Formats: sequence, C-alpha cells, structure tokens
Amino acid sequence: MNRTRRAEEVIAESQVVVGYKPYLKSIGDLTEGKELIPSNMTQEVERCRTALLRPREGDIVALISSGDPGVYGMAGLAIEMASAEGMTVPIEIVPGVCSANAAGARLGAPLMLDYAVISLSDLLVPWETIRSRLEAVASADLVVVIYNPQSKRRTRQLREAAAIFRRHRPGTTPVGIATDLDIEGERIVLSDLDHFLDFEINMRSIVLIGNRSSKCADGWFVTPRGYQL
Amino acid sequence: MNRTRRAEEVIAESQVVVGYKPYLKSIGDLTEGKELIPSNMTQEVERCRTALLRPREGDIVALISSGDPGVYGMAGLAIEMASAEGMTVPIEIVPGVCSANAAGARLGAPLMLDYAVISLSDLLVPWETIRSRLEAVASADLVVVIYNPQSKRRTRQLREAAAIFRRHRPGTTPVGIATDLDIEGERIVLSDLDHFLDFEINMRSIVLIGNRSSKCADGWFVTPRGYQL
Repeated sequence: MNRTRRAEEVIAESQVVVGYKPYLKSIGDLTEGKELIPSNMTQEVERCRTALLRPREGDIVALISSGDPGVYGMAGLAIEMASAEGMTVPIEIVPGVCSANAAGARLGAPLMLDYAVISLSDLLVPWETIRSRLEAVASADLVVVIYNPQSKRRTRQLREAAAIFRRHRPGTTPVGIATDLDIEGERIVLSDLDHFLDFEINMRSIVLIGNRSSKCADGWFVTPRGYQL
Repeated sequence: MNRTRRAEEVIAESQVVVGYKPYLKSIGDLTEGKELIPSNMTQEVERCRTALLRPREGDIVALISSGDPGVYGMAGLAIEMASAEGMTVPIEIVPGVCSANAAGARLGAPLMLDYAVISLSDLLVPWETIRSRLEAVASADLVVVIYNPQSKRRTRQLREAAAIFRRHRPGTTPVGIATDLDIEGERIVLSDLDHFLDFEINMRSIVLIGNRSSKCADGWFVTPRGYQL
C-alpha cells in the first residue's frame, strides 16, 4: 500500500538529526542513539549547509522543521543551496501536517473553502508586497491564515492587517488564534475581527480569519462549503 | 510528549469506519475487524449523517477524507450538520497532510512563500467568484494550488485560469501537476505556464503554479524565500 512517507520513518533511518534546538528537544523520544546537531534561530543558512555536507561522510541526515518543511520551513533553502553550490547529495522532502491545517482542526473547519497563507514577517519580503497581498485576499473573500503575526518588537503589521480585513468583512467574522500548537501550553482562542487583537498573540501563534460566510457553530469555527442541509 | 493526533490512531480506536468507497479500500490494512460503511461520490450529506447518527448506538465512528479533512473534505459538513440538526455527538477533527503539501514535497518546495488554495469546481461556488479569486491571487503574486482543476466534462475553467495567470506571470513560470498522489499510478509532472495544459490533468490532479520568482533547480520546483546564499 502506497502512503505518504512520514518524518518519523525518515528520522528512524537517519544517523544524524539537524534542527532548531527546541524542535530537537521535542522529538527526543525519536532520536535515541543518534547524533544531534542543534542550531539556533536565524542560523538557517548554516544549519542547512551542515545538513547538506554531512552525507559526504556516508550518513543519512534528517533536517527537521516544525509543521510542513515546505511552508516557511527548511525544504526550499536546502534545494536552493544544493543547486547553487553544486552539491550532488540526494534529497527527499517529506511533507508534514502544516500549522494551518493543525490549527484549523483544533478550531473546527475554517479552511473548507478557498484560502490563502500569508506571513507577516518582513525580514525577507518587503512590507509593501505583504500589504498588497493582504489587500488582494481580503477583497477576494478568501479565508486567510497568518503566519508570524507579531513579535514583541513587531506589532504594527498585524494591526494593519486587521484594519484591511475590517474594511472588507464584518467585525463579527470569526478569527481563531492558535499558540504553541501541539506543544506544552497550547492555547486556542476563538474570537472575531473586532476583538481578536485583545488576546495574546506572539511569534509562536498563527491567526485564521474567516471569509464573509464563515461562522461559529456550537463553539466551532466553520466556513460553509455550500451543501444544502 | 504532546503531538498532533493522527488518523491512524483514531481509526484504531473506532468500531465503525465511514468513507468514500475507494478511500476505504486504500486503508484496508487499518480496518481489519471493523464495520465498514462505504459510500459513493456526491453522497457527502448522507455519508455525514450516517457517521453522526451511529454514535447513538455507543460506537466510535471514524469518518475519513483523503488529505486533510478540513480542506475540501468532510470536517465542515460534519460540524454544520451536527449544529443544524441539534446532534450532541462529540466531534474530534484530526488533521492530515493536505494534498497541497504532499504534492509540494514531491515537486520540491513551491510553497515556501505566501500561497493560495483555490478549487475550480463550480458545483457549490459560482464561477464568477472563483474567477475573481484567481485574478486577485494572480495579480498579488501568490503561488497558487488549484484543486479540482478539470474533469472530462469540465475543461473550460482551467483554460481560463491559465489565461489569467499568463497575463501576470511569464510563460516560463514553473507549474507542477500531481495526479493520483500517494496511490497506485502516481504521476508528477513539472512543466511551465506555456505548456502545462498539454499534459493529462483530471479530477484526481492538483496543479501548482509558481509566483514570479519561482524557478526550477536541479529538477525541483522551488520558490525562493529570499535567503542570501
């Protein structure tokens, strides 16, 4: 039977596991007896190079991300670097449940119809580009999942995003916030466009904003797909 | 250790498994000794009602979708129906790897930056709405994942979508097609905006269209996130 390969299988096959320190810690039960190479935040380029060079010594290396490695994770950087530097190491990308889907499931079914995934981090993308994307998806009535909504120092972008969506959708539009998803201290909040900024939102949160037909039903956040009941 | 619950765990705990017939067949190794209730396509409403009513008899029922149940799957209908009909059955939504992420991993890392997920099926959503969403995400330079791109009888929409994207992006923009993902006969094609319509695309395909900086690197489809290498 063919089935999507899993991170757990690949980690089991590997001799070396490379990743952001807290992520390595969170999978301690899967890495016994393996060499661990922890790295810090913002060391993505160096972390990736370590993972790509190590197989020359004959090891299978697992480079881990949280959620899906192809969504704001390490997959793209690994492919770009291997290509740019002429590394011939074989690469396999193993998908995962991305945070948008994991948060959606906790909140109900907000992503039943067309949606967009947008990061508010302007470290690598100019804010003007991000702002115009928010404007486009707000006016096209797409559900939106916001990654990297804010940090201690960066709070302006989320307020601007909220203002954009308020111009296109009622203040009662459901908004979900998922913080520290699937780790200790997980917090799931169901609020609305007029009130969600009153809740704690940090760099480990994602924010889901409904479209014009999204609603709350028995405590769930759901975007109706249009079935006749 | 906290970790996202999996469909496999929930199926193992259940006594009854309800789902679209071919999906039930594909998980035969997980359902031994369980009661199976297969249903046909377009019987979503009836399938959902069966799953929601059965727990009154004391059984745990697993209602399965392919990919993630919250993305064009059964999660939303279950929540809406339970609420509309005052059913008090406890519901748990278990996320999965959605087809967008699974296809992305096969193709490389096309979803490294902001993206949208749009279905071209106009059974439940008017084509004019879908068309305006395509226009919005094409002009905002979002990567797009197209679900339900075409069927034997419905081919106009994908051609229209391709024309919209060609007005905003070069003909060399990478386009990936994943058909029968993770089942027998899986086909992965990497093409571009000018040529992808020459390949077979059916109702079991999804189509990924890059943004203006997406590229091919060593046979992979990658959207650079902006790291300096």
